[in-house]
Amino acid sequence: MGTRTISVVENILDANDRIAQANQELFDSTKTFAINFMASPGAGKTSVILRTVQYLNSRYRMAGVDGDVATTIDADRMAAIGIPAVQINTGGTCHLDAVMLSGALPKIELSEVDLLIIENVGNLICPASFKLGSHLDVLIASVPEGDDKPYKYPKMYRGVKATLLNKIDLLPYLDFDVEYFRKGVEVLNPGLAFFQISAKTGDGFEAYIDWLRNQIDVYLERA
Amino acid sequence: MGTRTISVVENILDANDRIAQANQELFDSTKTFAINFMASPGAGKTSVILRTVQYLNSRYRMAGVDGDVATTIDADRMAAIGIPAVQINTGGTCHLDAVMLSGALPKIELSEVDLLIIENVGNLICPASFKLGSHLDVLIASVPEGDDKPYKYPKMYRGVKATLLNKIDLLPYLDFDVEYFRKGVEVLNPGLAFFQISAKTGDGFEAYIDWLRNQIDVYLERA
Repeated sequence: MGTRTISVVENILDANDRIAQANQELFDSTKTFAINFMASPGAGKTSVILRTVQYLNSRYRMAGVDGDVATTIDADRMAAIGIPAVQINTGGTCHLDAVMLSGALPKIELSEVDLLIIENVGNLICPASFKLGSHLDVLIASVPEGDDKPYKYPKMYRGVKATLLNKIDLLPYLDFDVEYFRKGVEVLNPGLAFFQISAKTGDGFEAYIDWLRNQIDVYLERA
Repeated sequence: MGTRTISVVENILDANDRIAQANQELFDSTKTFAINFMASPGAGKTSVILRTVQYLNSRYRMAGVDGDVATTIDADRMAAIGIPAVQINTGGTCHLDAVMLSGALPKIELSEVDLLIIENVGNLICPASFKLGSHLDVLIASVPEGDDKPYKYPKMYRGVKATLLNKIDLLPYLDFDVEYFRKGVEVLNPGLAFFQISAKTGDGFEAYIDWLRNQIDVYLERA
């Protein structure tokens, strides 16, 4: 059983990568920069995204895609602050894939969107295997998860372009060694962009937003 | 592609359930009570297990099985307190399944074990679909993950026999509505055993351990 299963999975991944590429070509045809945010359940994906949107709202036209196994809670929260959002319910699947995203894109007027924010399903394992066609993949880690997570979930940390360490307002109440965490990240993904933030207090957002805005502006040729 | 994928998954699940049943028959032949702990990454599985072991150590002979995508950090922590532990590295798979567990069991002298503690891979989605053959499935939630998790990950909450809400020592620092959380749990799984604990301070462990000891003693015919 094992071997047959693996070969099916590989076929699916090949097909996924082709569709991911088609998604990115579509984004490029409308000059839409797509960011894929990934994290554990409860790391604060939606809260980080909402605060990010507040910073960028006056500068870019934005839309969102929210992946969840159930409910529209996250898309509702995005829509509540004026960002048109499409919810993808995966029906139990532990990640978004390029096909799901491709199915959601016709619901968004991409030619009127500079920045598409994709919120992946809360999971530190599965989303790492499925490219979406996004230009930037960002991992949101959080202090309460513990400082050993890069060591235990290496594939996720290897595949991203930036790590945001969220909930730093909780550092005084937890045994979390930022240097041990960062060393784990650095070994897996040398030179990765790394920011310490709190979506609750706003601490650390200036440096992260400066960096993010630069990524977007370079793509949009505004830099 | 979608339909073919789903049918393969169903075949795998059927095969998994048969092997899970064989695992349980093996446990029953040696009178070994098996508990499967599931949770998000960083909810505190290992810390809860280590404190649970301290409470039960004098009463039962124990062994552990630890599932992770990489590293032996968790099995090392169990072994460090004197519990023989086998690490299963899933090589990227987001859950333990009955076949993986079955492969690990010959490394444990089950006839000398009253209580087998299985620590699943950190994930709120995949482990819910794969029975292992355990007698008791327990979900460890944690306060920093947020009070909306039962609503967003319903399958996991439906499939377990108890939920432990861990890290209650952080309640003063977070916006977490215990009643909203509990209501979500209760709707999905009425009458589910529910305990509020802190693996850090030990708060709430007495009630949880009393309940757990009763489950084990009934099985071992010691109650």
